[in-house]
Amino acid sequence: MLRFHHIVRVSLFASKASTFPLTSLSLSTSIPKRTTFALRSQMTSFSSSSSSSSSKLLFRQLFEKESSTYTYLLADASHPDKPALLIDPVDRTVDRDLSLIQELGLKLVYAMNTHVHADHVTGTGLIKSKVPGVKSIISKASGATADLFVEPGDKVHFGDLFLEVRATPGHTLGCVTYVTGDASDQPQPRMAFTGDALLIRGCGRTDFQGGSSEQLYKSIFTLPKDTFIYPAHDYKGFSVSTVGEEMQYNPRLTKDEETFKNIMANLNLSYPKMIDVAVPANLVCGVQSK
Amino acid sequence: MLRFHHIVRVSLFASKASTFPLTSLSLSTSIPKRTTFALRSQMTSFSSSSSSSSSKLLFRQLFEKESSTYTYLLADASHPDKPALLIDPVDRTVDRDLSLIQELGLKLVYAMNTHVHADHVTGTGLIKSKVPGVKSIISKASGATADLFVEPGDKVHFGDLFLEVRATPGHTLGCVTYVTGDASDQPQPRMAFTGDALLIRGCGRTDFQGGSSEQLYKSIFTLPKDTFIYPAHDYKGFSVSTVGEEMQYNPRLTKDEETFKNIMANLNLSYPKMIDVAVPANLVCGVQSK
Repeated sequence: MLRFHHIVRVSLFASKASTFPLTSLSLSTSIPKRTTFALRSQMTSFSSSSSSSSSKLLFRQLFEKESSTYTYLLADASHPDKPALLIDPVDRTVDRDLSLIQELGLKLVYAMNTHVHADHVTGTGLIKSKVPGVKSIISKASGATADLFVEPGDKVHFGDLFLEVRATPGHTLGCVTYVTGDASDQPQPRMAFTGDALLIRGCGRTDFQGGSSEQLYKSIFTLPKDTFIYPAHDYKGFSVSTVGEEMQYNPRLTKDEETFKNIMANLNLSYPKMIDVAVPANLVCGVQSK
Repeated sequence: MLRFHHIVRVSLFASKASTFPLTSLSLSTSIPKRTTFALRSQMTSFSSSSSSSSSKLLFRQLFEKESSTYTYLLADASHPDKPALLIDPVDRTVDRDLSLIQELGLKLVYAMNTHVHADHVTGTGLIKSKVPGVKSIISKASGATADLFVEPGDKVHFGDLFLEVRATPGHTLGCVTYVTGDASDQPQPRMAFTGDALLIRGCGRTDFQGGSSEQLYKSIFTLPKDTFIYPAHDYKGFSVSTVGEEMQYNPRLTKDEETFKNIMANLNLSYPKMIDVAVPANLVCGVQSK
């Protein structure tokens, strides 16, 4: 079954700030022609042209109740190997996630984080110990260890699908948002996994771990309005929003820069209860003993 | 703005057990031709033919953390009036749901329940008091009061989209599952809102309120395997499954009838803590004083 080769190519055309990134993390495979799967997928690809549906995204949103964290499972279900990735896995729900991946017949290739979390311990280290071959991914700017580091403009390929990396600092210096590809054979509308940078009708706190939130405007809000926003957390029971909705109704990010800075400077939030445990652990994939 | 007429027609062609229901609850409107909206929708309609995309489902899954209840918002976003319905709203999250509906510019027409819940108080009564014109819907077999009663085979129309009603007793005598329409202009894959009858890798308890769970096989499991399962609850952080997945991995419903009955008879669950409050309230749309 191991027809997969973890050859990761980083092209030489790095361009940190381009809207259409040139750097590419690509998973090369020695796979025959794509076969057609009629597999389940929460988000089916839609195109107004009739030449769509070549790739099918299998998508699952998973919730960890204690820290109200969303973990996202994405896979190319049309690809013979069904390569999959997890975004922001939590240590305590790793077994649930790996069980589901096994049942769905997926091959987990990447365990990724949007940033160094302060409210829960990442599952990436645990996943790597349980599933040999899985590579952990985090942004270079995070300062954390991982198998692969991404920078703004990079692409992360899984089968015939890919995610783009966008810089969305503010909550932490190294926060990135992963966005599904800008191409006709990629899921439409696009999907943005914003971590803690942009939450539904909110945003992550900006009073520790560095950063400045204005950059959200320059990154997330340049995406098409129908782009889905999938955050790392929700505390009110929302599961998804859109760029258009947040541009219109986000109570913080609809304010001018000065007002926004004032709001963020006066939240008077308590010290994050998990930060002293979670951050040191998450700097090393959640496995502190290493 | 009130271009909507709540004329509910129940046709004479009632057929309780048909796979292709004939009875129809239809929301008639005096609306000009459909205009094209490029509105957000979590689940876009996909068809292998090139003549699709006439209707666009706007879909939101909403979570109430205390009772781990999912409420579902569905709307026809392509219809000029954007008629919407809520499935299994919870009293304590009514304001959240109505706020979202207002922000999205939707017109709520139905507040529906899959059954008389025992673990939370329904929001239908509260919604009706806050949004005049909304009609509550529940199955006739539930024994509860509501504005409209549905029976297996009925269809509930909202704009150009519709839900079919299927009998799925077991958890309670009156449990129904609402399934998106079986037609080329309806969402593909289909979506089944199963209430407590079928949960992800589980099913609702069958030790009170009557019923027998075998009928699940005869109703849900005849749906296409790629049909999405959206339950009324999840306690492990799953948000969606498919008919195919549950046929293969549901630890209870993959068993033969005798084993299944034994499992259900020996769960030794504690008495539901909310049942004595919730059931009497939910028999009258959650508003006991009426």
